[in-house]
Amino acid sequence: MEESDKNRIDVQKKRERHFLSIKDISKTLFDDILERAESFQALQTREIKKLPLLRGKTVANLFFEPSTRTRTTFELAAKRLSADVINIDIQTSATRKGESLKDTLRTLESMQTDFFVVRHPESGAAKFIADLVGDHVSVINAGDGRHEHPTQAMVDMFTILKNKKSFSDLIVSIVGDVSHSRVARSEIHALKMVGVREIRVVGPKTLIPDQIEKLGVRTFFSLEKGLKDADVIITLRLQRERMQSALLPSEKEYYRCFGLTQERLKLAKKDALVMHPGPINRGIEIESSVADGTQSVILEQVSNGISVRMAVMAILSGLKYQK
Amino acid sequence: MEESDKNRIDVQKKRERHFLSIKDISKTLFDDILERAESFQALQTREIKKLPLLRGKTVANLFFEPSTRTRTTFELAAKRLSADVINIDIQTSATRKGESLKDTLRTLESMQTDFFVVRHPESGAAKFIADLVGDHVSVINAGDGRHEHPTQAMVDMFTILKNKKSFSDLIVSIVGDVSHSRVARSEIHALKMVGVREIRVVGPKTLIPDQIEKLGVRTFFSLEKGLKDADVIITLRLQRERMQSALLPSEKEYYRCFGLTQERLKLAKKDALVMHPGPINRGIEIESSVADGTQSVILEQVSNGISVRMAVMAILSGLKYQK
Amino acid sequence: MEESDKNRIDVQKKRERHFLSIKDISKTLFDDILERAESFQALQTREIKKLPLLRGKTVANLFFEPSTRTRTTFELAAKRLSADVINIDIQTSATRKGESLKDTLRTLESMQTDFFVVRHPESGAAKFIADLVGDHVSVINAGDGRHEHPTQAMVDMFTILKNKKSFSDLIVSIVGDVSHSRVARSEIHALKMVGVREIRVVGPKTLIPDQIEKLGVRTFFSLEKGLKDADVIITLRLQRERMQSALLPSEKEYYRCFGLTQERLKLAKKDALVMHPGPINRGIEIESSVADGTQSVILEQVSNGISVRMAVMAILSGLKYQK
Repeated sequence: MEESDKNRIDVQKKRERHFLSIKDISKTLFDDILERAESFQALQTREIKKLPLLRGKTVANLFFEPSTRTRTTFELAAKRLSADVINIDIQTSATRKGESLKDTLRTLESMQTDFFVVRHPESGAAKFIADLVGDHVSVINAGDGRHEHPTQAMVDMFTILKNKKSFSDLIVSIVGDVSHSRVARSEIHALKMVGVREIRVVGPKTLIPDQIEKLGVRTFFSLEKGLKDADVIITLRLQRERMQSALLPSEKEYYRCFGLTQERLKLAKKDALVMHPGPINRGIEIESSVADGTQSVILEQVSNGISVRMAVMAILSGLKYQK
Repeated sequence: MEESDKNRIDVQKKRERHFLSIKDISKTLFDDILERAESFQALQTREIKKLPLLRGKTVANLFFEPSTRTRTTFELAAKRLSADVINIDIQTSATRKGESLKDTLRTLESMQTDFFVVRHPESGAAKFIADLVGDHVSVINAGDGRHEHPTQAMVDMFTILKNKKSFSDLIVSIVGDVSHSRVARSEIHALKMVGVREIRVVGPKTLIPDQIEKLGVRTFFSLEKGLKDADVIITLRLQRERMQSALLPSEKEYYRCFGLTQERLKLAKKDALVMHPGPINRGIEIESSVADGTQSVILEQVSNGISVRMAVMAILSGLKYQK
Repeated sequence: MEESDKNRIDVQKKRERHFLSIKDISKTLFDDILERAESFQALQTREIKKLPLLRGKTVANLFFEPSTRTRTTFELAAKRLSADVINIDIQTSATRKGESLKDTLRTLESMQTDFFVVRHPESGAAKFIADLVGDHVSVINAGDGRHEHPTQAMVDMFTILKNKKSFSDLIVSIVGDVSHSRVARSEIHALKMVGVREIRVVGPKTLIPDQIEKLGVRTFFSLEKGLKDADVIITLRLQRERMQSALLPSEKEYYRCFGLTQERLKLAKKDALVMHPGPINRGIEIESSVADGTQSVILEQVSNGISVRMAVMAILSGLKYQK
């Protein structure tokens, strides 16, 4: 092996010990995850849903904001890989006794924890933690503020790939509160990486960031126009908390303009996929019959979430111990 | 096999994927549970309390009202069968974010959960959930409102059988707040199924449902008369919340009239069993010395609870994958 | 074997089923734990951190006061020995429904739990529980009131031994709120058992118990004098709650007089170890740079906590089933 190759691999190994954002991962890791997730799919419907890949390893779920759904998929993914899982409820933890986050992390790290799965209300928290921890710990970002939610984007790319032959011809519309959505940010980076034909962001002006076009997306302030000929519609969850901040007049008004109804769905391609990262607000961002309709792959996303998170953990774990 | 037999088994297999109520299960399943529980008894005192029957399966405990005791027995039963267990605290789950119960269930189901163990304050909740979920999920009712608590009744039938030669000669007195007790309802159906000589319900008029005799039980408003010659006394937990509803004058008054004291216990057969589903209120429904006395099998009920719940899960799991 | 030997062993086996205090354990058990912990050390950095020693056994964590740190080390230790772990949140448990502690314990015991790991705000609670439970349960004291925290002291003795050749020449200074510290009490008993040259307790008069010299320690009300020539400095956590009780003027004042600063650390031996049971209050009992400095073994203590707790469980479990 030439020196330059070795250096490149060393750098990559160092950087890809963690899984913090779609923006910063290599295409190699990205593709590996999709491929490995596919290999885990058969397991989910087998009678014995268990592989020994992470046996004897410890996964610590560090959730600084509650999320039963995401925590549970990580917990199940880890357990199906035979890892031991520790759930740390940060509200009742040592931070209440005045211990700093830094000390809490170093303490957990000293217990030879292999993975920190981190959900945090502040953007950049996962990176901050990754910079703190030692070489034997992999940090997985399970959502940090408005920044990224990279495993969700991987799940969604995997789900699109399972339903569409290839990415290159697709028009994908991301609909809703793009400004506050870490999911949207990760999706955009992921869609650029797989190379879809067109990425659209669709929503009211108050909820679309200025200059988002610089990311290589087209902006639509009309849902009707934004859905036209779309192959994939990713509906974002409306953070009801936003209502109070006067960015939105009312839920009813939002639904009237940007709710994905059966009527509007007809504007997209006939076989357009309807996606949502969940939990959904029926009758606010999406009509109930659309969420439950034949084009919806919302539950498939949940299902794929296990395989994809297993893939992320298995691969990071492999990289770590690779000689 | 004749067509009619095959149909019957198909119907039974379909219906008996879940365990929702004693009223609706077949005598075959009922007897299977008692027999299988017996086969698990030896395990509980062995050094290694572990069998691989549910290895790679996922059990989700969905507790909509808190119950450390019941949740723990299900958790231990599942773990002793090598299942992975997920505890979902419904208060902090996605329902807080506006997701409907239905969506929460479908989400969990999409994660390839094999069992939902459900405790819910509303009667019929377990059935409602069973109707919602797909073919690969078994729902076990761990207590729904005033309706049923079928595994508790199975535990109690198992405990009676271990202590008495047969059911057919027994007089069984169920004492206390029958009106609000899901345990009482399940016990009555179970006692009818095993065919005891006489089922009695004993309590103050305000806490005995009208026309309960239609279920084939005898009603007693005097504890002394209700205990006469009884072989088994099932004391119900007094829901202290009822006091406020004016159905009862006071705890003291209740104990004076319906507390199971040593004095009163003498009215029953000499070898009468004293049972209680727990948690007990000492000095309210039962005298301390009776709860701890030689005729009490209250802790044996707890102990048997593991084997019986293991049996329910093992059998339902078997039915599901049976070819 | 002579009769007297057999009696001695029987007595020892009976007494040493539990691990309640350093004061009352035998030197044999004490040394066994240190030796066994050493044998578990290599495991912690291995890829597969798992041994089958407690397979099929159940460990119940009973935490009557919150402690993520201690609970997590016990949970990890148990899981790395392949035990099933049940976390019982005592606040939401049956005690809320009016069940007495005694009944809760007997209920858990009836579920064939093998270990109760108990943290309780009242001194003597672990012993009280040990006296209640049956022969098949081992109780481990994870901190009871101001009484003892014996596994922490074992962790600390283990950590000292790993860093110093022998105990016999050491001067060990315990600094801080000795009066309210269960850790201090356990450390003093442990240090006497290993036979260090000198044990010092150092702190303000209001936080050093009267007549503590009777335990064989030297008292210092000046940190400077107490640190002179020390080989090991065990800094205690300052319970901020004490401030309100007027035993201390202010955190600032405490730090001024008893905070372990870099300047003061120089008074101790050059290679003196800096220890702290955690969680630390930076800038109150210890200067940040000291906590993170080269002499600090605070994170090593956390790390050793797993091996030592594994050792305690493995040995107690062995004694129980020993023929």
